[in-house]
Amino acid sequence: MVIVIQCLDKVGLVASIAGLLQEQNLNIVSMREHVDSIQNRFFTRIEISIPVDAQILESQLKSILPDDAQIIVNPNPLKRIVVLATKEYHCLSDILIRNHFNTLGAEVLAVIANHTNLADICNRFEMPFHLISHEGITKEAFESELYTLLQKYQVDYIVLAKFMRILSPNFVEKYPLKIINIHHSFLPAFVGANPYRQAYERGVKLIGATAHFVTNQLDEGPIIAQQIIPVNHSFTSKDMVKAGMEIETSVLANALQLVFDDKVLVYQNKTVVF
Amino acid sequence: MVIVIQCLDKVGLVASIAGLLQEQNLNIVSMREHVDSIQNRFFTRIEISIPVDAQILESQLKSILPDDAQIIVNPNPLKRIVVLATKEYHCLSDILIRNHFNTLGAEVLAVIANHTNLADICNRFEMPFHLISHEGITKEAFESELYTLLQKYQVDYIVLAKFMRILSPNFVEKYPLKIINIHHSFLPAFVGANPYRQAYERGVKLIGATAHFVTNQLDEGPIIAQQIIPVNHSFTSKDMVKAGMEIETSVLANALQLVFDDKVLVYQNKTVVF
Amino acid sequence: MVIVIQCLDKVGLVASIAGLLQEQNLNIVSMREHVDSIQNRFFTRIEISIPVDAQILESQLKSILPDDAQIIVNPNPLKRIVVLATKEYHCLSDILIRNHFNTLGAEVLAVIANHTNLADICNRFEMPFHLISHEGITKEAFESELYTLLQKYQVDYIVLAKFMRILSPNFVEKYPLKIINIHHSFLPAFVGANPYRQAYERGVKLIGATAHFVTNQLDEGPIIAQQIIPVNHSFTSKDMVKAGMEIETSVLANALQLVFDDKVLVYQNKTVVF
Amino acid sequence: MVIVIQCLDKVGLVASIAGLLQEQNLNIVSMREHVDSIQNRFFTRIEISIPVDAQILESQLKSILPDDAQIIVNPNPLKRIVVLATKEYHCLSDILIRNHFNTLGAEVLAVIANHTNLADICNRFEMPFHLISHEGITKEAFESELYTLLQKYQVDYIVLAKFMRILSPNFVEKYPLKIINIHHSFLPAFVGANPYRQAYERGVKLIGATAHFVTNQLDEGPIIAQQIIPVNHSFTSKDMVKAGMEIETSVLANALQLVFDDKVLVYQNKTVVF
Repeated sequence: MVIVIQCLDKVGLVASIAGLLQEQNLNIVSMREHVDSIQNRFFTRIEISIPVDAQILESQLKSILPDDAQIIVNPNPLKRIVVLATKEYHCLSDILIRNHFNTLGAEVLAVIANHTNLADICNRFEMPFHLISHEGITKEAFESELYTLLQKYQVDYIVLAKFMRILSPNFVEKYPLKIINIHHSFLPAFVGANPYRQAYERGVKLIGATAHFVTNQLDEGPIIAQQIIPVNHSFTSKDMVKAGMEIETSVLANALQLVFDDKVLVYQNKTVVF
Repeated sequence: MVIVIQCLDKVGLVASIAGLLQEQNLNIVSMREHVDSIQNRFFTRIEISIPVDAQILESQLKSILPDDAQIIVNPNPLKRIVVLATKEYHCLSDILIRNHFNTLGAEVLAVIANHTNLADICNRFEMPFHLISHEGITKEAFESELYTLLQKYQVDYIVLAKFMRILSPNFVEKYPLKIINIHHSFLPAFVGANPYRQAYERGVKLIGATAHFVTNQLDEGPIIAQQIIPVNHSFTSKDMVKAGMEIETSVLANALQLVFDDKVLVYQNKTVVF
Repeated sequence: MVIVIQCLDKVGLVASIAGLLQEQNLNIVSMREHVDSIQNRFFTRIEISIPVDAQILESQLKSILPDDAQIIVNPNPLKRIVVLATKEYHCLSDILIRNHFNTLGAEVLAVIANHTNLADICNRFEMPFHLISHEGITKEAFESELYTLLQKYQVDYIVLAKFMRILSPNFVEKYPLKIINIHHSFLPAFVGANPYRQAYERGVKLIGATAHFVTNQLDEGPIIAQQIIPVNHSFTSKDMVKAGMEIETSVLANALQLVFDDKVLVYQNKTVVF
Repeated sequence: MVIVIQCLDKVGLVASIAGLLQEQNLNIVSMREHVDSIQNRFFTRIEISIPVDAQILESQLKSILPDDAQIIVNPNPLKRIVVLATKEYHCLSDILIRNHFNTLGAEVLAVIANHTNLADICNRFEMPFHLISHEGITKEAFESELYTLLQKYQVDYIVLAKFMRILSPNFVEKYPLKIINIHHSFLPAFVGANPYRQAYERGVKLIGATAHFVTNQLDEGPIIAQQIIPVNHSFTSKDMVKAGMEIETSVLANALQLVFDDKVLVYQNKTVVF
């Protein structure tokens, strides 16, 4: 059983929380606490061994913590997610496989895509596949359709598994810190079209991937996980794309595991990953 | 200010500790707690922002914790260490440089070696260098000399920076969890003479290094840090030795930083690294 | 178009090979050459841009190279493989996905397993699945059945994707350097039952995986690829198993790509990976 | 003995080169060739076992290769270098140590700095240290002084070991592909002052370092080596600076080894690293 809390920092928070747990004879199996002293923000993640009534504990915690406290007790271990994709198979397939063998830590309810390419792989896993084409309609109309469909699924998270449409601030606001995205990252950063071509021409020795929450605050949102894969001059730009796919798949899987294990806390534009 | 505790686990330990800190108006800036449920062992590392009297706090903690509790409050941030070496320069030089620029988190009091090769580099940093040759004397006599010399320095830790003598159980017992060693590691493990030659002949693709505490319990003792460096067929066995030197230097530096920051707790043959 | 050659080393081999290509106006786009000076062995891999008749070029090369030369010209880019598995899904699923999207560089003809667990995932991709149970029969009988089945498929390679039976020397001899295996690797190496439990109890900081050819020469055979994943004290032995699965999947995928791209040459118990 | 060649690509280059070596009974121990098919550029690096007269071989190669060929035969294994630094000790110290123990693959002739901080560490190794302050003089005057001093040392390479002055195009032109720089790299890239502070505030999970040749062509020049080090929320911006120092030291050392081993060929804004 997991307890995740963030709130304004003050002296005695750990004592209050741990005291409350002790009163109920609950043993803390694992605990991490972090104070962002610049933001004056308190973060903690506590694992206890014996399950208790989550709602009762949550309201007990509420009563002893600052008003702004965000408290999650015993979050559903199986998050409900919908995956948005476009044409690329690598991230989605990895998620479908993990979902199928119950190692994702989440239940994929459906896949929504703006192209039909990935319908077949979804069908193979009896995964509901919805096509919402963006062609011939406004972004507003597209997102309205998307939102209507998403509302039918009570999602905990929306995973953008190489979904190639930029979501409007209006849409993003409806799912604060609920949308997870993966994208390639380069050193140096390449702006403009075809970054892999630029990376090739520049002879980079690394290709990275970044998984992050989607927000309107900044261009990218709070980073959950990042990793890189080495490349070299013998890689064509096509090989670099392939290497990018490998690292994107791996970083997204890693980020999802952290999020689904309730190990990622967000404040402002920054994550605490316990 | 840092508090490090390990003891038998029981319900309420975090509450007791945090309560004590709260009473003194001390804010926990960072905290990590781990329970080894198989060993039933509690570990924690707490950072508080305001310094207090360490001895008083330590005795207060003693009074509320189980009898077997090992408590360290406000450990001296500058550990006192002596480095033992033989002929190889890479780990020792790295330590001397960090020591010289005050980024080691420890104060190197002296270097002791069983060969003279490294006397010069020590002299360049006005580092006391002691030669204790093992030649022509028994291991007992050698270690007796070593022990006499070490006693003059009040060491917190002894760092074996490629010290090529195996220390007897008798000697090791005098410094429980105070001796840190670095050695190369291979996949698969190569026993017998010249592991680099074997690694070359076997065409390994990785060379590893392991930093660990020296104990008599097992062949190796509790692992502090491990890391690897990729190699390939174009590496001669000499190149592999060189790659091994790089990774040994890097892993030892990393392990020392963790130990000197009081982030490494040991129980039985296993470390908890916060 | 790819040319892969290994033979006894002697002066002038590159000149002879490159001269032959020049006569036919063939441009070398990429070339790697390595001489193992201890074994006195010559290895090269050459990519040429314009396709020619492979059989003619191969016999031309034969005529100018030492008698023992192993020459492969224009190897079928799509290797024919059969995958052997037991119960674990991670490596097999990854192979099935890549096979399905034509990015494996090989064609998976069938899956053979000694348990039925993985039949379902194979069916989802219309992949022929054959059960050969090892229960109640001798190893000889089991392998005889296996061999009979394998002969029906003209395989280039057999991939052991967590196949939990040890193949006899007799069987292995039938497929020299044609069987690729993946297994976990630890630093230190743990012998005996349940290595993950031992790794947990020992507090290792890394879990590795090694992909190798299966031979009778040594316990493990020539190493194709190795990589590691960091772990720490917070990992239960179950978490370590999970981390092991991630790195096994990744290392096997990497090794297969190298083998299927004809970048791996083997001599004695060692690979040259170009 | 090493031969490094780059020129316009055409059919038969390997045959010509290898033929010439064969005539002189020279055995190719290791060879790598790469054609950049977009740039139509040929690159090769050849190791031969028996030493011959470099000048004669070079002129022989010139006579059989395209006019634009850049040929280096038997480059001095001990490059002559001067290191430019400012105040930070980490990269310079690492270079001084390797130089002192003759494992740098280069001879450091002198250190030039625009501050006195690093004079002491140079003195400890009897390394000539020159102060050229940039204060109170124009960039032109500063670089003129620098150039005058550098001319006294016949340098093969100038290593910028955290040299915090931007060199003018005019100066850089005097040392084409002879100046090697190291700098931190971030994902995403942070522009403006204090990138570490920005990285901290953004909660990045990686800090990278890039070693590259300094050119006027682009902001950064051809990349030689890149690597990253993982960081997390518990790192203060000061900790991130420290992590950055570790990876900068390591990447610069790696890049220098590649350059000093004549494994790095440059064309346009891109390296081929054999």
